[in-house]
Amino acid sequence: GWSVRTHVSVNPAKLKSHRQRWNVRPSEMSKKTLNPIRAIVDGMKLTPNPEKPMIALSIGDPTVFGNLPTDDTVLQAVKEAIDSHKYNGYAPSVGYQKSREAVANFYSCPEAPLEGKDVILTSGCSQAIELAISVLCNPGDNILVPRPGFSLYKTLAVSMGIQVKFYNLLPEKSWEIDLQHLESLIDDKTACLIVNNPSNPCGSVFTKEHQHKILAVASRNCIPILADEIYGDMVFPGCDFQPLAPLSSDVPILSCGGLAKRWLVPGWRMGWILIHDCNYIFGTGIREGLVKLSQRILGPCTVVQGALESILNDTPPEFYQGTISFLKSNSEICFSELSTVPGLNPVMPSGAMYIMVGIEMEHFPDFQNDVEFTERLVTEQSVFCLPATAFEYPNFFRIVVTVPEEMMIEACIRIREFCARHYRPRSQDSHELDQ
Amino acid sequence: GWSVRTHVSVNPAKLKSHRQRWNVRPSEMSKKTLNPIRAIVDGMKLTPNPEKPMIALSIGDPTVFGNLPTDDTVLQAVKEAIDSHKYNGYAPSVGYQKSREAVANFYSCPEAPLEGKDVILTSGCSQAIELAISVLCNPGDNILVPRPGFSLYKTLAVSMGIQVKFYNLLPEKSWEIDLQHLESLIDDKTACLIVNNPSNPCGSVFTKEHQHKILAVASRNCIPILADEIYGDMVFPGCDFQPLAPLSSDVPILSCGGLAKRWLVPGWRMGWILIHDCNYIFGTGIREGLVKLSQRILGPCTVVQGALESILNDTPPEFYQGTISFLKSNSEICFSELSTVPGLNPVMPSGAMYIMVGIEMEHFPDFQNDVEFTERLVTEQSVFCLPATAFEYPNFFRIVVTVPEEMMIEACIRIREFCARHYRPRSQDSHELDQ
Ligand SMILES: Cc1ncc(COP(=O)(O)O)c(C=O)c1O
Ligand SMILES: Cc1ncc(COP(=O)(O)O)c(C=O)c1O
Repeated sequence: GWSVRTHVSVNPAKLKSHRQRWNVRPSEMSKKTLNPIRAIVDGMKLTPNPEKPMIALSIGDPTVFGNLPTDDTVLQAVKEAIDSHKYNGYAPSVGYQKSREAVANFYSCPEAPLEGKDVILTSGCSQAIELAISVLCNPGDNILVPRPGFSLYKTLAVSMGIQVKFYNLLPEKSWEIDLQHLESLIDDKTACLIVNNPSNPCGSVFTKEHQHKILAVASRNCIPILADEIYGDMVFPGCDFQPLAPLSSDVPILSCGGLAKRWLVPGWRMGWILIHDCNYIFGTGIREGLVKLSQRILGPCTVVQGALESILNDTPPEFYQGTISFLKSNSEICFSELSTVPGLNPVMPSGAMYIMVGIEMEHFPDFQNDVEFTERLVTEQSVFCLPATAFEYPNFFRIVVTVPEEMMIEACIRIREFCARHYRPRSQDSHELDQ
Repeated sequence: GWSVRTHVSVNPAKLKSHRQRWNVRPSEMSKKTLNPIRAIVDGMKLTPNPEKPMIALSIGDPTVFGNLPTDDTVLQAVKEAIDSHKYNGYAPSVGYQKSREAVANFYSCPEAPLEGKDVILTSGCSQAIELAISVLCNPGDNILVPRPGFSLYKTLAVSMGIQVKFYNLLPEKSWEIDLQHLESLIDDKTACLIVNNPSNPCGSVFTKEHQHKILAVASRNCIPILADEIYGDMVFPGCDFQPLAPLSSDVPILSCGGLAKRWLVPGWRMGWILIHDCNYIFGTGIREGLVKLSQRILGPCTVVQGALESILNDTPPEFYQGTISFLKSNSEICFSELSTVPGLNPVMPSGAMYIMVGIEMEHFPDFQNDVEFTERLVTEQSVFCLPATAFEYPNFFRIVVTVPEEMMIEACIRIREFCARHYRPRSQDSHELDQ
């Protein structure tokens, strides 16, 4: 019986189990770190037509064609930081106080004042988003993410065991949020609402009124907001960029930004979190949590940090204006060209660097979906646009409008040719006409 | 009974639970991200003696006193990278191929050849360590970490739900690993062995023979190694730095390094992982896992990446030699001064930038432990050394030997004075003599 002691001699080495053969496997977390853009693009057959030079309208990097250089002030500032010999050592993990103050001053406004202590410098806006999600959410929580939207939110959240709930943006309402749908997704595990304005991939810019309504939803349901404003101020003349935080009277906001887009230096990996907490809802806990998380890898490159004050204060307004008017002009070219292509429905953007184009799939029976459509656009016309399935939004594709004007024009001509060849009036339409 | 349908009208809004009041708390992960150095130092009363200028021997940043500038080649390389206008855009998340190849060429050797694909560029060695632990370990696993040792290993592991098991280093054997103790800790949940050579905080450098024995333990138990070799090649003349990977005939190794220490630019946040897998044990899984993890925040600053080839290939040997002979000279001054202080037992280092000093606590009854000892050293003598409790090793303190020579000398004089005042021959000793 079980109560009788057995007197078998046991080899103590065998008591402790240890590995007898090699079995090194990548962690669950690394396996859960999925990049949908890579997954989709790597699965596509992207062989351009050898008779036509490739035009890539797919890459959200404004520097690739050399037509949008950063300003000399920006480069000079970094060279001066190097020459000063002052920025080679470790900075505090949240950044130099002076650099944090420079960012605070640049973004502070009476309705949402900022001080140095409210700024955390990060390795790109990507790390800003990573830290913000990490400090607000626990495994098992969920976050609300725009659809279509930037894929990193889901990539990060899923890898951390956080569930993603997509709320709809409405193309027919300039990609405003479907607020009812948004609110219907909230439950007691909802830890954070991500609002991306101006939007990648939509190029949309929210009005003040719409943002008030977003804040009302967050306020009613007591959900803090991660505002991804990396494209802040990159809006076309005639439209206003309204940061979210100054409109909030209670909802605490972590606003994420950086140098990548507006200053056209995405490789430099300089980002930041602006902590807005007018009603002391984050309290000290969230701030201390962010500081702790920043100590894991110790912030962005000090030379760029040292240049930050000059970059923000000395870059001439003409530089920003030049970028914006170029983006607007290219967007208008692209929009007006594609508006008259049967089967395509571009949505005119108001900012950022993107246009979303709807595909009336029923008129393109040669293709199952946006992935096949954009794949064949490469094979036949050597034009590559990202299928919006990469943004969880099938039957659209995204065009990056940072390419040189001639390329934009040539790309539109080729897209028109491609669509003309594959467009089919729906048979039902003709039937209906017959009846 | 339960089968009878009730006809109570239910307000659907009440069915779904959602938060009724604000309750934003920092995540468990942020709370578990503990920095022992901060925890200890923040808890210390560090008020220097106003009559003596402060000498900080506590900071592992070789740049703070200005006496160890980086080489001009290094600064020039970054300025050229800026002037080229070629390094402002996004690099691949694992780094530019050319930069990866530059690192591979620099560290490749016939016994452990490296190609560009074996190198992952990271935001400092800290992120290299973070990615290596993240890809090898799952929550619930354990890792083997040196004691005394660099605190980041535990900080990262604990925040990820990975258990830390400390293996002992033996001060009387030049801080070699207690191999029996190491092996006794291994169980079937052991996912990784961290070996730090040359060592922070010990300044020790392992012999080839000792490293063969470490590899034998890992091999017998099928445990991959994270080799933190950030102080690689920073060893004193007469001693040889032997990287671990060329000695391995089977054990797969992720070797972590960077520009921080040897090139004296820790703020630049340029680190790397060298993937050594001579026996194809990592296979493609670990490599792919590292690539995926790198996509979360997209690698280090591109301008520094662009300078990497020139930094590695063009920095003159005299620069490295100059640093090393300075560190050796300062170490010898410190060691010989403190060796003759009753109650202190410094251990002479062979590399890196640190000396560990044992405190015979029984002779210093004024203090409970190393934390009190170093605290009072500040109050009385304005000399600050990190208590080795910060490295999980009580009754020692760590001295950073990068400070200017005069400071090193002055600090030793003050430490001697401090010890002389507080030293007490043990009463038992005198009793024993009486008998
Ligand atoms: C909406 C959005 N947020 C964040 C980022 C990441 O910015 P960074 O390159 O500074 O990490 C991007 C980059 O494309 C983006 O489109
Ligand atoms: C042993 C060890 N590993 C890693 C690091 C981190 O290096 P980095 O500054 O490149 O992140 C340090 C920094 O002090 C260290 O001492």
